[in-house]
Amino acid sequence: MTLETLSTNKAYGGVQGVYRHDSAETKTAMTFAVFVPDHEPGETLPVLFYLSGLTCTHANVMEKGEYRAACAAEKIIFVAPDTSPRGEGVPDDPEGKYDFGLGAGFYVDATQAPFAANYRMRSYIEQELPALIAAHFPADMARQGITGHSMGGHGALTIALRNPDRFRSVSAFAPIVAPSQVPWGQKALGGYLGDDASAWAQHDAVALIEGGARLPDLLVDQGDADNFLEQELKTHLLEEACAKAGQPATIRMQPGYDHSYYFISTFMAEHVRWHAARLK
Amino acid sequence: MTLETLSTNKAYGGVQGVYRHDSAETKTAMTFAVFVPDHEPGETLPVLFYLSGLTCTHANVMEKGEYRAACAAEKIIFVAPDTSPRGEGVPDDPEGKYDFGLGAGFYVDATQAPFAANYRMRSYIEQELPALIAAHFPADMARQGITGHSMGGHGALTIALRNPDRFRSVSAFAPIVAPSQVPWGQKALGGYLGDDASAWAQHDAVALIEGGARLPDLLVDQGDADNFLEQELKTHLLEEACAKAGQPATIRMQPGYDHSYYFISTFMAEHVRWHAARLK
Repeated sequence: MTLETLSTNKAYGGVQGVYRHDSAETKTAMTFAVFVPDHEPGETLPVLFYLSGLTCTHANVMEKGEYRAACAAEKIIFVAPDTSPRGEGVPDDPEGKYDFGLGAGFYVDATQAPFAANYRMRSYIEQELPALIAAHFPADMARQGITGHSMGGHGALTIALRNPDRFRSVSAFAPIVAPSQVPWGQKALGGYLGDDASAWAQHDAVALIEGGARLPDLLVDQGDADNFLEQELKTHLLEEACAKAGQPATIRMQPGYDHSYYFISTFMAEHVRWHAARLK
Repeated sequence: MTLETLSTNKAYGGVQGVYRHDSAETKTAMTFAVFVPDHEPGETLPVLFYLSGLTCTHANVMEKGEYRAACAAEKIIFVAPDTSPRGEGVPDDPEGKYDFGLGAGFYVDATQAPFAANYRMRSYIEQELPALIAAHFPADMARQGITGHSMGGHGALTIALRNPDRFRSVSAFAPIVAPSQVPWGQKALGGYLGDDASAWAQHDAVALIEGGARLPDLLVDQGDADNFLEQELKTHLLEEACAKAGQPATIRMQPGYDHSYYFISTFMAEHVRWHAARLK
Protein backbone atom coordinates (compact mmCIF):
# COMPACT_ATOMS: atom_id res chain seq x y z
CA MET A 1 0.00 0.00 0.00
CA THR A 2 2.26 2.77 -1.22
CA LEU A 3 1.00 6.30 -1.14
CA GLU A 4 2.04 9.13 -3.44
CA THR A 5 1.91 12.62 -1.97
CA LEU A 6 0.50 15.03 -4.54
CA SER A 7 0.59 18.17 -2.36
CA THR A 8 0.86 19.39 1.21
CA ASN A 9 0.02 22.84 2.55
CA LYS A 10 0.30 24.08 6.09
CA ALA A 11 -3.10 25.23 7.36
CA TYR A 12 -4.37 26.04 10.84
CA GLY A 13 -1.16 24.69 12.32
CA GLY A 14 -1.60 21.29 10.65
CA VAL A 15 -1.08 19.83 7.21
CA GLN A 16 -3.65 19.59 4.41
CA GLY A 17 -2.42 16.89 2.08
CA VAL A 18 -3.60 15.27 -1.14
CA TYR A 19 -2.55 11.69 -1.81
CA ARG A 20 -2.91 9.07 -4.56
CA HIS A 21 -2.64 5.32 -4.52
CA ASP A 22 -3.42 2.36 -6.77
CA SER A 23 -6.62 0.88 -5.43
CA ALA A 24 -6.98 -2.89 -5.37
CA GLU A 25 -10.76 -2.43 -5.15
CA THR A 26 -11.40 -0.03 -8.02
CA LYS A 27 -8.34 -1.08 -10.08
CA THR A 28 -7.70 2.62 -10.67
CA ALA A 29 -5.56 5.32 -9.09
CA MET A 30 -7.63 6.92 -6.32
CA THR A 31 -6.99 10.40 -4.92
CA PHE A 32 -8.02 11.57 -1.46
CA ALA A 33 -7.42 14.51 0.88
CA VAL A 34 -6.37 14.30 4.54
CA PHE A 35 -6.03 17.11 7.07
CA VAL A 36 -3.83 16.22 10.03
CA PRO A 37 -3.91 18.78 12.86
CA ASP A 38 -0.82 19.73 14.79
CA HIS A 39 -0.14 17.05 17.41
CA GLU A 40 2.53 15.69 19.72
CA PRO A 41 5.08 13.15 18.42
CA GLY A 42 3.59 9.69 18.77
CA GLU A 43 0.11 11.02 19.51
CA THR A 44 -2.78 9.48 17.56
CA LEU A 45 -5.95 11.37 16.74
CA PRO A 46 -9.56 10.42 16.00
CA VAL A 47 -10.58 10.28 12.34
CA LEU A 48 -13.63 11.81 10.66
CA PHE A 49 -14.47 10.50 7.18
CA TYR A 50 -16.37 12.89 4.89
CA LEU A 51 -18.11 11.41 1.84
CA SER A 52 -18.88 13.90 -0.91
CA GLY A 53 -21.91 14.28 -3.15
CA LEU A 54 -22.62 13.90 -6.85
CA THR A 55 -20.04 15.42 -9.24
CA CYS A 56 -17.50 16.03 -6.45
CA THR A 57 -13.92 14.89 -6.08
CA HIS A 58 -11.82 15.04 -2.90
CA ALA A 59 -11.23 18.72 -3.67
CA ASN A 60 -14.66 20.29 -3.19
CA VAL A 61 -14.85 19.92 0.57
CA MET A 62 -11.11 20.54 0.89
CA GLU A 63 -11.52 23.95 -0.75
CA LYS A 64 -15.00 24.97 0.36
CA GLY A 65 -15.88 22.89 3.43
CA GLU A 66 -14.26 25.10 6.10
CA TYR A 67 -13.52 22.13 8.38
CA ARG A 68 -9.89 22.86 9.23
CA ALA A 69 -10.47 25.43 11.97
CA ALA A 70 -12.73 23.09 13.94
CA CYS A 71 -10.64 19.97 13.23
CA ALA A 72 -7.49 21.79 14.40
CA ALA A 73 -9.25 22.96 17.58
CA GLU A 74 -10.65 19.49 18.30
CA LYS A 75 -7.58 17.60 17.03
CA ILE A 76 -9.46 15.42 14.56
CA ILE A 77 -8.06 14.01 11.30
CA PHE A 78 -10.39 14.75 8.36
CA VAL A 79 -10.40 12.34 5.40
CA ALA A 80 -12.12 13.19 2.09
CA PRO A 81 -12.10 10.46 -0.60
CA ASP A 82 -13.25 10.71 -4.20
CA THR A 83 -16.81 9.76 -5.18
CA SER A 84 -16.06 7.16 -7.86
CA PRO A 85 -13.26 5.46 -9.74
CA ARG A 86 -11.91 7.53 -12.63
CA GLY A 87 -9.51 7.09 -15.51
CA GLU A 88 -9.09 5.35 -18.82
CA GLY A 89 -11.47 2.48 -19.33
CA VAL A 90 -13.74 3.29 -16.37
CA PRO A 91 -17.31 3.19 -17.71
CA ASP A 92 -19.48 6.27 -17.28
CA ASP A 93 -23.19 6.96 -17.51
CA PRO A 94 -24.28 5.89 -21.02
CA GLU A 95 -25.92 9.28 -21.49
CA GLY A 96 -23.07 11.18 -19.80
CA LYS A 97 -25.32 12.53 -17.06
CA TYR A 98 -23.99 13.75 -13.71
CA ASP A 99 -26.00 11.39 -11.51
CA PHE A 100 -24.46 8.04 -12.47
CA GLY A 101 -20.98 6.76 -13.28
CA LEU A 102 -18.04 9.13 -12.85
CA GLY A 103 -18.48 11.27 -9.73
CA ALA A 104 -21.51 9.21 -8.74
CA GLY A 105 -20.36 5.91 -7.25
CA PHE A 106 -23.11 5.92 -4.62
CA TYR A 107 -20.88 3.99 -2.19
CA VAL A 108 -21.96 0.55 -3.43
CA ASP A 109 -20.12 -2.44 -4.89
CA ALA A 110 -21.61 -2.78 -8.36
CA THR A 111 -22.73 -6.22 -9.51
CA GLN A 112 -23.82 -5.21 -13.01
CA ALA A 113 -21.71 -5.08 -16.18
CA PRO A 114 -19.83 -2.98 -17.16
CA PHE A 115 -19.61 -1.33 -13.73
CA ALA A 116 -18.77 -4.28 -11.48
CA ALA A 117 -15.04 -4.26 -12.25
CA ASN A 118 -14.32 -0.71 -11.02
CA TYR A 119 -17.31 0.63 -9.08
CA ARG A 120 -16.48 -0.82 -5.67
CA MET A 121 -16.86 2.29 -3.52
CA ARG A 122 -18.47 0.36 -0.66
CA SER A 123 -15.44 -1.89 -0.18
CA TYR A 124 -13.14 1.03 -0.87
CA ILE A 125 -14.62 3.13 1.96
CA GLU A 126 -15.33 0.22 4.30
CA GLN A 127 -12.05 -1.70 3.89
CA GLU A 128 -9.29 -0.29 1.73
CA LEU A 129 -9.27 3.38 2.67
CA PRO A 130 -9.36 2.91 6.48
CA ALA A 131 -6.47 0.41 6.21
CA LEU A 132 -4.52 3.00 4.24
CA ILE A 133 -5.29 5.72 6.78
CA ALA A 134 -4.28 3.46 9.65
CA ALA A 135 -0.99 2.60 7.93
CA HIS A 136 0.08 6.09 6.84
CA PHE A 137 -1.38 8.65 9.27
CA PRO A 138 -1.33 9.20 13.05
CA ALA A 139 -4.86 7.86 13.34
CA ASP A 140 -6.52 6.20 16.30
CA MET A 141 -8.79 3.79 14.43
CA ALA A 142 -10.66 2.98 17.64
CA ARG A 143 -12.13 6.48 17.32
CA GLN A 144 -13.77 6.92 13.90
CA GLY A 145 -16.67 9.09 12.84
CA ILE A 146 -18.34 9.52 9.47
CA THR A 147 -20.28 12.27 7.75
CA GLY A 148 -21.11 13.33 4.21
CA HIS A 149 -23.23 15.47 1.92
CA SER A 150 -26.16 14.44 -0.29
CA MET A 151 -25.04 11.19 -2.01
CA GLY A 152 -22.23 11.23 0.57
CA GLY A 153 -24.76 11.68 3.37
CA HIS A 154 -26.45 8.55 2.06
CA GLY A 155 -23.03 6.86 2.10
CA ALA A 156 -22.27 7.98 5.65
CA LEU A 157 -25.62 6.86 7.05
CA THR A 158 -25.71 3.48 5.31
CA ILE A 159 -22.06 2.61 5.97
CA ALA A 160 -22.51 3.53 9.64
CA LEU A 161 -25.76 1.59 9.96
CA ARG A 162 -24.07 -1.51 8.53
CA ASN A 163 -20.93 -1.02 10.68
CA PRO A 164 -22.17 0.22 14.04
CA ASP A 165 -19.10 -1.09 15.85
CA ARG A 166 -16.70 0.87 13.66
CA PHE A 167 -18.12 4.36 14.06
CA ARG A 168 -18.71 6.19 17.31
CA SER A 169 -20.34 9.18 15.62
CA VAL A 170 -22.46 9.72 12.50
CA SER A 171 -23.83 12.83 10.85
CA ALA A 172 -24.93 14.03 7.44
CA PHE A 173 -25.61 17.21 5.49
CA ALA A 174 -28.68 17.07 3.25
CA PRO A 175 -28.48 13.29 2.79
CA ILE A 176 -30.38 11.12 0.33
CA VAL A 177 -32.15 9.16 3.08
CA ALA A 178 -34.14 6.64 1.02
CA PRO A 179 -32.50 6.07 -2.38
CA SER A 180 -34.87 3.19 -3.14
CA GLN A 181 -37.73 5.70 -3.23
CA VAL A 182 -36.25 8.59 -5.26
CA PRO A 183 -35.06 9.08 -8.88
CA TRP A 184 -31.35 9.56 -8.17
CA GLY A 185 -31.25 6.45 -6.02
CA GLN A 186 -33.43 4.27 -8.24
CA LYS A 187 -31.24 5.04 -11.24
CA ALA A 188 -28.00 4.41 -9.33
CA LEU A 189 -29.03 1.31 -7.38
CA GLY A 190 -30.70 -0.14 -10.47
CA GLY A 191 -27.68 0.60 -12.64
CA TYR A 192 -25.07 -0.72 -10.22
CA LEU A 193 -27.00 -3.50 -8.44
CA GLY A 194 -29.67 -4.52 -10.94
CA ASP A 195 -33.43 -4.34 -10.92
CA ASP A 196 -33.99 -6.73 -7.99
CA ALA A 197 -34.79 -4.18 -5.32
CA SER A 198 -34.08 -6.69 -2.52
CA ALA A 199 -30.38 -5.94 -3.12
CA TRP A 200 -31.03 -2.25 -2.51
CA ALA A 201 -32.16 -2.34 1.11
CA GLN A 202 -28.68 -2.42 2.61
CA HIS A 203 -27.91 0.75 0.66
CA ASP A 204 -30.93 2.66 1.92
CA ALA A 205 -30.77 4.32 5.36
CA VAL A 206 -34.52 4.28 5.87
CA ALA A 207 -34.76 0.62 4.86
CA LEU A 208 -31.84 -0.29 7.13
CA ILE A 209 -33.48 1.40 10.12
CA GLU A 210 -36.80 -0.24 9.28
CA GLY A 211 -34.92 -3.55 9.13
CA GLY A 212 -33.56 -3.13 12.64
CA ALA A 213 -30.16 -1.46 12.17
CA ARG A 214 -29.38 1.03 14.92
CA LEU A 215 -26.88 3.74 15.85
CA PRO A 216 -26.41 5.37 19.26
CA ASP A 217 -27.55 8.65 17.68
CA LEU A 218 -27.16 10.68 14.51
CA LEU A 219 -27.16 14.33 13.44
CA VAL A 220 -28.65 15.60 10.16
CA ASP A 221 -28.84 19.20 8.92
CA GLN A 222 -31.07 19.96 5.94
CA GLY A 223 -31.77 23.33 4.32
CA ASP A 224 -35.42 24.03 3.66
CA ALA A 225 -34.53 26.02 0.51
CA ASP A 226 -32.71 23.01 -0.95
CA ASN A 227 -33.90 22.43 -4.54
CA PHE A 228 -33.48 18.68 -4.13
CA LEU A 229 -35.37 18.33 -0.86
CA GLU A 230 -38.76 17.42 -2.21
CA GLN A 231 -37.85 15.00 -4.98
CA GLU A 232 -34.51 13.43 -3.99
CA LEU A 233 -33.75 13.93 -0.29
CA LYS A 234 -37.13 13.51 1.43
CA THR A 235 -35.80 14.10 4.93
CA HIS A 236 -39.22 13.39 6.41
CA LEU A 237 -38.83 9.70 5.52
CA LEU A 238 -35.82 9.51 7.84
CA GLU A 239 -37.63 11.42 10.57
CA GLU A 240 -40.57 9.02 10.32
CA ALA A 241 -38.40 5.88 10.26
CA CYS A 242 -36.38 7.03 13.29
CA ALA A 243 -39.52 7.97 15.22
CA LYS A 244 -41.16 4.63 14.47
CA ALA A 245 -38.04 2.60 15.29
CA GLY A 246 -37.02 4.55 18.36
CA GLN A 247 -33.74 5.45 16.69
CA PRO A 248 -32.35 8.57 18.46
CA ALA A 249 -31.83 11.28 15.86
CA THR A 250 -31.26 15.04 15.77
CA ILE A 251 -32.68 16.13 12.42
CA ARG A 252 -32.70 19.90 11.92
CA MET A 253 -34.42 21.83 9.14
CA GLN A 254 -32.36 24.97 8.56
CA PRO A 255 -34.47 27.83 7.21
CA GLY A 256 -33.26 29.48 4.01
CA TYR A 257 -30.29 27.20 3.34
CA ASP A 258 -29.77 25.49 -0.03
CA HIS A 259 -27.79 22.42 -1.18
CA SER A 260 -24.44 24.19 -1.67
CA TYR A 261 -21.17 24.39 0.22
CA TYR A 262 -22.41 27.72 1.61
CA PHE A 263 -24.82 25.58 3.60
CA ILE A 264 -22.33 22.84 4.44
CA SER A 265 -19.61 25.25 5.58
CA THR A 266 -22.10 27.09 7.81
CA PHE A 267 -22.79 23.98 9.85
CA MET A 268 -19.45 22.17 9.43
CA ALA A 269 -17.94 23.37 12.72
CA GLU A 270 -21.01 22.23 14.64
CA HIS A 271 -20.76 18.79 13.04
CA VAL A 272 -17.05 18.52 13.82
CA ARG A 273 -17.73 19.42 17.46
CA TRP A 274 -20.62 16.95 17.57
CA HIS A 275 -18.26 14.21 16.37
CA ALA A 276 -15.51 15.39 18.73
CA ALA A 277 -17.79 15.04 21.73
CA ARG A 278 -18.36 11.37 20.81
CA LEU A 279 -14.79 10.57 19.78
CA LYS A 280 -13.07 11.65 22.98
CA MET B 1 -25.79 52.41 -11.28
CA THR B 2 -27.90 49.31 -11.77
CA LEU B 3 -26.76 46.06 -10.31
CA GLU B 4 -27.53 42.59 -11.61
CA THR B 5 -27.71 39.82 -9.04
CA LEU B 6 -26.00 36.70 -10.38
CA SER B 7 -26.48 34.51 -7.31
CA THR B 8 -27.31 34.59 -3.62
CA ASN B 9 -26.74 31.82 -1.06
CA LYS B 10 -27.57 31.88 2.60
CA ALA B 11 -24.44 31.33 4.67
CA TYR B 12 -23.70 31.77 8.37
CA GLY B 13 -27.06 33.48 8.81
CA GLY B 14 -26.30 36.11 6.15
CA VAL B 15 -26.26 36.28 2.37
CA GLN B 16 -23.30 35.61 0.08
CA GLY B 17 -24.12 37.32 -3.20
CA VAL B 18 -22.44 37.75 -6.57
CA TYR B 19 -23.29 40.86 -8.58
CA ARG B 20 -22.46 42.38 -11.96
CA HIS B 21 -22.64 45.93 -13.26
CA ASP B 22 -21.48 47.94 -16.25
CA SER B 23 -18.47 49.87 -15.04
CA ALA B 24 -18.02 53.45 -16.23
CA GLU B 25 -14.34 53.21 -15.32
CA THR B 26 -13.35 49.98 -17.06
CA LYS B 27 -16.05 50.16 -19.77
CA THR B 28 -16.69 46.47 -19.15
CA ALA B 29 -19.09 44.41 -17.08
CA MET B 30 -17.49 43.94 -13.65
CA THR B 31 -18.41 41.12 -11.26
CA PHE B 32 -17.94 41.25 -7.50
CA ALA B 33 -18.94 39.28 -4.40
CA VAL B 34 -20.50 40.69 -1.23
CA PHE B 35 -21.27 38.92 2.03
CA VAL B 36 -23.86 40.71 4.16
CA PRO B 37 -24.27 39.27 7.67
CA ASP B 38 -27.62 38.96 9.35
CA HIS B 39 -28.60 42.37 10.76
CA GLU B 40 -31.53 44.36 12.04
CA PRO B 41 -33.81 46.22 9.59
CA GLY B 42 -32.30 49.64 8.94
CA GLU B 43 -28.99 48.74 10.58
CA THR B 44 -25.83 49.59 8.68
CA LEU B 45 -22.61 47.60 9.03
CA PRO B 46 -18.92 48.35 8.53
CA VAL B 47 -17.37 47.26 5.25
CA LEU B 48 -14.15 45.32 4.64
CA PHE B 49 -12.78 45.37 1.09
CA TYR B 50 -10.62 42.40 0.07
CA LEU B 51 -8.42 42.78 -3.02
CA SER B 52 -7.33 39.52 -4.62
CA GLY B 53 -4.03 38.49 -6.11
CA LEU B 54 -2.77 37.60 -9.58
CA THR B 55 -5.01 35.29 -11.64
CA CYS B 56 -7.93 35.60 -9.22
CA THR B 57 -11.51 36.70 -9.77
CA HIS B 58 -14.05 37.58 -7.06
CA ALA B 59 -14.61 33.85 -6.63
CA ASN B 60 -11.33 32.63 -5.14
CA VAL B 61 -11.68 34.26 -1.75
CA MET B 62 -15.45 33.70 -1.78
CA GLU B 63 -14.90 29.96 -2.07
CA LYS B 64 -11.64 29.47 -0.18
CA GLY B 65 -11.16 32.49 2.08
CA GLU B 66 -13.20 31.29 5.09
CA TYR B 67 -14.19 34.84 6.07
CA ARG B 68 -17.92 34.36 6.58
CA ALA B 69 -17.81 32.90 10.10
CA ALA B 70 -15.81 35.84 11.45
CA CYS B 71 -17.69 38.45 9.41
CA ALA B 72 -21.01 37.07 10.67
CA ALA B 73 -19.77 37.10 14.26
CA GLU B 74 -18.42 40.65 13.95
CA LYS B 75 -21.21 41.91 11.67
CA ILE B 76 -18.93 43.16 8.90
CA ILE B 77 -19.81 43.32 5.20
CA PHE B 78 -17.10 41.68 3.05
CA VAL B 79 -16.60 42.93 -0.52
CA ALA B 80 -14.43 41.06 -3.05
CA PRO B 81 -14.00 42.69 -6.48
CA ASP B 82 -12.34 41.24 -9.58
CA THR B 83 -8.66 41.90 -10.28
CA SER B 84 -8.95 43.40 -13.78
CA PRO B 85 -11.40 44.29 -16.52
CA ARG B 86 -12.36 41.31 -18.67
CA GLY B 87 -14.30 40.68 -21.85
CA GLU B 88 -14.21 41.16 -25.57
CA GLY B 89 -11.70 43.76 -26.68
CA VAL B 90 -9.90 44.06 -23.33
CA PRO B 91 -6.18 43.79 -24.11
CA ASP B 92 -4.16 41.09 -22.32
CA ASP B 93 -0.48 40.48 -21.77
CA PRO B 94 1.14 40.33 -25.21
CA GLU B 95 2.74 37.01 -24.26
CA GLY B 96 -0.36 35.74 -22.48
CA LYS B 97 1.43 35.46 -19.12
CA TYR B 98 -0.42 35.42 -15.80
CA ASP B 99 1.32 38.44 -14.27
CA PHE B 100 0.02 41.21 -16.53
CA GLY B 101 -3.29 42.05 -18.22
CA LEU B 102 -6.31 39.88 -17.45
CA GLY B 103 -6.38 38.96 -13.76
CA ALA B 104 -3.48 41.31 -13.10
CA GLY B 105 -4.74 44.90 -13.03
CA PHE B 106 -2.40 45.85 -10.17
CA TYR B 107 -4.92 48.46 -8.89
CA VAL B 108 -3.58 51.29 -11.08
CA ASP B 109 -5.12 53.55 -13.73
CA ALA B 110 -3.13 52.71 -16.84
CA THR B 111 -1.77 55.57 -18.92
CA GLN B 112 -0.22 53.45 -21.66
CA ALA B 113 -1.84 52.19 -24.87
CA PRO B 114 -3.60 49.83 -25.33
CA PHE B 115 -4.37 49.45 -21.62
CA ALA B 116 -5.46 52.97 -20.66
CA ALA B 117 -9.03 52.60 -21.90
CA ASN B 118 -10.01 49.67 -19.66
CA TYR B 119 -7.37 49.15 -16.97
CA ARG B 120 -8.65 51.66 -14.42
CA MET B 121 -8.66 49.49 -11.30
CA ARG B 122 -7.44 52.33 -9.07
CA SER B 123 -10.44 54.52 -9.83
CA TYR B 124 -12.69 51.48 -9.81
CA ILE B 125 -11.68 50.52 -6.26
CA GLU B 126 -11.26 54.07 -4.97
CA GLN B 127 -14.39 55.64 -6.49
CA GLU B 128 -16.85 53.51 -8.42
CA LEU B 129 -17.09 50.38 -6.29
CA PRO B 130 -17.55 52.13 -2.91
CA ALA B 131 -20.30 54.31 -4.43
CA LEU B 132 -22.01 51.16 -5.65
CA ILE B 133 -21.68 49.48 -2.25
CA ALA B 134 -23.05 52.57 -0.51
CA ALA B 135 -26.04 52.69 -2.87
CA HIS B 136 -27.02 49.02 -2.83
CA PHE B 137 -25.99 47.48 0.50
CA PRO B 138 -26.60 48.25 4.20
CA ALA B 139 -23.11 49.71 4.51
CA ASP B 140 -21.86 52.34 6.92
CA MET B 141 -19.28 54.02 4.68
CA ALA B 142 -17.87 55.92 7.65
CA ARG B 143 -16.46 52.57 8.78
CA GLN B 144 -14.36 51.02 6.01
CA GLY B 145 -11.39 48.70 6.19
CA ILE B 146 -9.26 47.19 3.44
CA THR B 147 -7.16 44.06 3.07
CA GLY B 148 -5.86 41.88 0.28
CA HIS B 149 -3.49 39.13 -0.82
CA SER B 150 -0.24 39.41 -2.78
CA MET B 151 -1.00 41.85 -5.66
CA GLY B 152 -4.16 42.64 -3.67
CA GLY B 153 -2.08 43.24 -0.55
CA HIS B 154 -0.14 45.77 -2.60
CA GLY B 155 -3.48 47.29 -3.63
CA ALA B 156 -4.77 47.43 -0.06
CA LEU B 157 -1.63 49.05 1.35
CA THR B 158 -1.23 51.63 -1.42
CA ILE B 159 -4.90 52.58 -1.63
CA ALA B 160 -5.01 52.98 2.15
CA LEU B 161 -1.79 54.99 2.26
CA ARG B 162 -3.18 57.37 -0.38
CA ASN B 163 -6.61 57.57 1.33
CA PRO B 164 -5.90 57.59 5.06
CA ASP B 165 -9.18 59.36 5.83
CA ARG B 166 -11.28 56.70 4.12
CA PHE B 167 -10.01 53.59 5.90
CA ARG B 168 -9.95 53.01 9.63
CA SER B 169 -8.18 49.66 9.32
CA VAL B 170 -5.64 48.16 6.92
CA SER B 171 -4.12 44.71 6.67
CA ALA B 172 -2.57 42.41 4.07
CA PHE B 173 -1.68 38.78 3.45
CA ALA B 174 1.69 38.23 1.76
CA PRO B 175 1.64 41.62 0.00
CA ILE B 176 3.93 42.87 -2.74
CA VAL B 177 5.34 45.70 -0.61
CA ALA B 178 7.66 47.41 -3.09
CA PRO B 179 6.55 46.73 -6.68
CA SER B 180 9.08 49.25 -8.03
CA GLN B 181 11.84 46.94 -6.83
CA VAL B 182 10.62 43.48 -7.95
CA PRO B 183 9.97 41.75 -11.29
CA TRP B 184 6.15 41.44 -11.01
CA GLY B 185 5.85 45.10 -10.12
CA GLN B 186 8.36 46.44 -12.60
CA LYS B 187 6.62 44.63 -15.43
CA ALA B 188 3.16 45.80 -14.34
CA LEU B 189 3.96 49.40 -13.44
CA GLY B 190 6.10 49.76 -16.57
CA GLY B 191 3.42 48.24 -18.77
CA TYR B 192 0.52 50.23 -17.36
CA LEU B 193 2.24 53.51 -16.38
CA GLY B 194 5.26 53.68 -18.66
CA ASP B 195 8.97 53.61 -18.03
CA ASP B 196 9.18 56.87 -16.05
CA ALA B 197 9.51 55.42 -12.57
CA SER B 198 8.48 58.72 -10.97
CA ALA B 199 4.89 57.70 -11.79
CA TRP B 200 5.33 54.46 -9.87
CA ALA B 201 5.93 55.84 -6.39
CA GLN B 202 2.27 56.33 -5.52
CA HIS B 203 1.70 52.65 -6.35
CA ASP B 204 4.45 51.37 -4.08
CA ALA B 205 3.76 51.00 -0.36
CA VAL B 206 7.40 51.30 0.66
CA ALA B 207 7.87 54.41 -1.50
CA LEU B 208 4.68 55.97 -0.12
CA ILE B 209 5.83 55.44 3.47
CA GLU B 210 9.28 56.77 2.61
CA GLY B 211 7.50 59.77 1.06
CA GLY B 212 5.66 60.56 4.25
CA ALA B 213 2.31 58.74 3.90
CA ARG B 214 1.08 57.32 7.20
CA LEU B 215 -1.60 55.04 8.63
CA PRO B 216 -2.60 54.65 12.28
CA ASP B 217 -1.31 51.06 12.11
CA LEU B 218 -1.30 48.07 9.81
CA LEU B 219 -1.23 44.26 10.06
CA VAL B 220 0.67 41.99 7.67
CA ASP B 221 0.95 38.19 7.78
CA GLN B 222 3.57 36.52 5.60
CA GLY B 223 4.42 32.82 5.35
CA ASP B 224 8.10 32.01 5.51
CA ALA B 225 7.63 29.04 3.14
CA ASP B 226 6.11 31.33 0.49
CA ASN B 227 7.82 30.66 -2.86
CA PHE B 228 7.46 34.32 -3.82
CA LEU B 229 8.86 35.83 -0.64
CA GLU B 230 12.44 36.30 -1.72
CA GLN B 231 11.98 37.60 -5.25
CA GLU B 232 8.58 39.33 -5.35
CA LEU B 233 7.28 40.10 -1.86
CA LYS B 234 10.38 41.18 0.08
CA THR B 235 8.54 41.79 3.34
CA HIS B 236 11.72 43.05 4.96
CA LEU B 237 11.57 46.21 2.82
CA LEU B 238 8.26 47.10 4.47
CA GLU B 239 9.61 46.30 7.92
CA GLU B 240 12.61 48.54 7.29
CA ALA B 241 10.56 51.40 5.84
CA CYS B 242 8.08 51.31 8.76
CA ALA B 243 10.89 51.19 11.33
CA LYS B 244 12.70 54.09 9.72
CA ALA B 245 9.55 56.21 9.33
CA GLY B 246 8.06 55.42 12.71
CA GLN B 247 5.02 53.87 10.98
CA PRO B 248 3.32 51.54 13.50
CA ALA B 249 3.10 48.07 11.95
CA THR B 250 2.46 44.51 13.07
CA ILE B 251 4.32 42.36 10.54
CA ARG B 252 4.33 38.67 11.36
CA MET B 253 6.38 35.94 9.70
CA GLN B 254 4.34 32.74 9.94
CA PRO B 255 6.54 29.64 9.97
CA GLY B 256 5.78 26.96 7.39
CA TYR B 257 3.00 28.80 5.55
CA ASP B 258 3.02 29.24 1.77
CA HIS B 259 1.30 31.67 -0.63
CA SER B 260 -1.99 29.75 -0.96
CA TYR B 261 -5.51 30.13 0.38
CA TYR B 262 -4.57 27.50 2.98
CA PHE B 263 -2.40 30.26 4.45
CA ILE B 264 -4.94 33.05 3.93
CA SER B 265 -7.84 31.12 5.43
CA THR B 266 -5.76 30.21 8.48
CA PHE B 267 -5.30 33.87 9.41
CA MET B 268 -8.48 35.33 7.92
CA ALA B 269 -10.48 35.28 11.15
CA GLU B 270 -7.69 37.10 12.99
CA HIS B 271 -7.62 39.77 10.28
CA VAL B 272 -11.39 40.19 10.38
CA ARG B 273 -11.27 40.61 14.15
CA TRP B 274 -8.37 43.06 13.82
CA HIS B 275 -10.47 45.16 11.45
CA ALA B 276 -13.56 44.78 13.63
CA ALA B 277 -11.72 46.19 16.63
CA ARG B 278 -10.94 49.34 14.61
CA LEU B 279 -14.31 49.64 12.86
CA LYS B 280 -16.49 49.65 15.95
